[in-house]
Amino acid sequence: MEISKLGEFGLIDHITKDIQLNNASSIFGIGDDCAVMHYPNTEVLITTDMLMEGIHFDLTYVTMQELGYKAAMENISDIFAMNGTPRQMTVSMAIGKRFKVEDIEAFYKGLRSACDKWSIDIVGGDTTSSYTGLAISITCIGEARKEDIVYRNGAKETDLVCVTGDLGAAYMGLQLLEREKEVYYQQIDDINRKIKEAQKAGNEEAVKHFQEQGSHIANFQPDFAGKEYLLERQLKPEARGDMIQLLREHNIRPTAMMDISDGLSSELLHICKRSNCGCRIYEKNIPIDYQTAIMAEELNINVTTAAMNGGEDYELLFTCPIGDHDKLQDLEEAGVKQIGYITKPELGVRLISRDQQEFDITAQGWNPLQ
Amino acid sequence: MEISKLGEFGLIDHITKDIQLNNASSIFGIGDDCAVMHYPNTEVLITTDMLMEGIHFDLTYVTMQELGYKAAMENISDIFAMNGTPRQMTVSMAIGKRFKVEDIEAFYKGLRSACDKWSIDIVGGDTTSSYTGLAISITCIGEARKEDIVYRNGAKETDLVCVTGDLGAAYMGLQLLEREKEVYYQQIDDINRKIKEAQKAGNEEAVKHFQEQGSHIANFQPDFAGKEYLLERQLKPEARGDMIQLLREHNIRPTAMMDISDGLSSELLHICKRSNCGCRIYEKNIPIDYQTAIMAEELNINVTTAAMNGGEDYELLFTCPIGDHDKLQDLEEAGVKQIGYITKPELGVRLISRDQQEFDITAQGWNPLQ
Repeated sequence: MEISKLGEFGLIDHITKDIQLNNASSIFGIGDDCAVMHYPNTEVLITTDMLMEGIHFDLTYVTMQELGYKAAMENISDIFAMNGTPRQMTVSMAIGKRFKVEDIEAFYKGLRSACDKWSIDIVGGDTTSSYTGLAISITCIGEARKEDIVYRNGAKETDLVCVTGDLGAAYMGLQLLEREKEVYYQQIDDINRKIKEAQKAGNEEAVKHFQEQGSHIANFQPDFAGKEYLLERQLKPEARGDMIQLLREHNIRPTAMMDISDGLSSELLHICKRSNCGCRIYEKNIPIDYQTAIMAEELNINVTTAAMNGGEDYELLFTCPIGDHDKLQDLEEAGVKQIGYITKPELGVRLISRDQQEFDITAQGWNPLQ
Repeated sequence: MEISKLGEFGLIDHITKDIQLNNASSIFGIGDDCAVMHYPNTEVLITTDMLMEGIHFDLTYVTMQELGYKAAMENISDIFAMNGTPRQMTVSMAIGKRFKVEDIEAFYKGLRSACDKWSIDIVGGDTTSSYTGLAISITCIGEARKEDIVYRNGAKETDLVCVTGDLGAAYMGLQLLEREKEVYYQQIDDINRKIKEAQKAGNEEAVKHFQEQGSHIANFQPDFAGKEYLLERQLKPEARGDMIQLLREHNIRPTAMMDISDGLSSELLHICKRSNCGCRIYEKNIPIDYQTAIMAEELNINVTTAAMNGGEDYELLFTCPIGDHDKLQDLEEAGVKQIGYITKPELGVRLISRDQQEFDITAQGWNPLQ
């Protein structure tokens, strides 16, 4: 259905009509000049992200539903990274003319499935049009007790540096999708050239043959067997609220924490800068899934580079007092890995390689403005 | 300066380095995964707007500084429209390649001047790139005591319907700017055509003459004398926090309220729908500035249509118990105008014209998705 059939208010009504508020802190949601919330006993956390078509996502290999899920998760992840609990979300979209009502429905389906996972209420937003691509802006609101909030600036000398899950898989998933896209377009270009040549030569039979081949290519589903994890990490990332819960259950309170969106290198530098410290990270301790390693080998990419600079993992990077070492050891099975420790600032932000060489860690993470 | 010289974090540092937090409710601002706020005794209000180049603004006649100011004021206006006090703001921008650091500085200068006017802290945002135009997403956070919040749904039969300021001027300002832009481009096209013809004819002297004429046109400043108010209303709108204050000082508590962004017609329909009521609005009572009236005459536009459907006035539309009539009368001088009253829903949403005819009010306000 054409969006213009519904208009702005019609589309908003259509998309949001069955949205309900479940959190006690959500007083009033969609339908007035503002949403209204109530946080008498906790601090209010707020984070916002803007996603632009062609810069942050490519709709040739991401579905609208996946995009909605990922856009929500990226923001939810920032609330967890403060050791908070996400509660509300606002969703703004600027929509180009080529989108249909069904596309927006699919986006909201993904978004709401991410919100439902963490019991988050959608309380507002803005829906408008765009001359060109799709633009998305999401704001997530959460809460935390004042004493529970973990900033980036609390890391202390001798603290342990930990990450959850594994790193680099989302980046390798992106490389895989980019490669398939390139192969696909090359094949389409080739077949179109062949069709044209055959048409020029007046060879009807060859034209038909190549057209059939072209339709096979267009419908071809690449075989991602053995690489499912990489795709899932790129297309359907999960914010690690489960890890926040796990740390609480084990009475581990991080001294500094952030989520890994731009890449481990970039995030380590942020924590060290804000905490005025250095760190030593051991390459051999960086958690990497075997699918990531195989794909890196296949594409001739250094797997540590992928893990350090790839980004979009949405895992948690945090520091803990060294006294938590044994408790953390117990969580290794569950996916909490000690990768190094915090040092004095003058010792720098350093990576110790498998062969005991030392390197400065520099931010080669994703920079949208370079 | 090229933005790529600074990169994402460099640009954010550059733009936000001297931002300070002044409100007691602002605990932590820019520089972590989330901003942190504290609202133990009041409800938290949140509103968000997305502005797209070419749809919501045209940089051929709006400066980046004006854009920043207006973008902030539009959001601030929504907080006032709930009878709240604005406190924090987050600012996200997606920036095309043609923008320079100076453009972003100018945008922030305008934005901060609007925020300073109402003592609002900038606590976060996102800065990224865009393949095409400029995209802006602003979220404003405010507070209000629970008992003070005014929703759209509280209007009651016999309530008075009031508006602040005057209506239609922002719309006429837009028409004026659009007209000047059209004239300008027509003149440039004409002169370019003449230059080409002269070049073809090998007439050096004529080429020089037309080139000089072209440079005059390019530097020509249109004469907006007598129309300053219209331009100001379009380019530098003011959120009516002063009116919120005035109503409080006079112990007037609106039963329903919203700001007039899409046009009076559209907003009246919102209030009547949500309050399950009708209304009778008197054309003769709709406040119109004389510059608006003169410009409407000049452009052959019905001035009431401009006032009812123009939008972007950012005045307040509110309803009050009829018992407030005398108190409201005292505020007429200050710019509070009674334009009609609330009726039973079955009587409809009606406009009574100067010659006593009655019309249904329909939403012809700005619809970005049609």
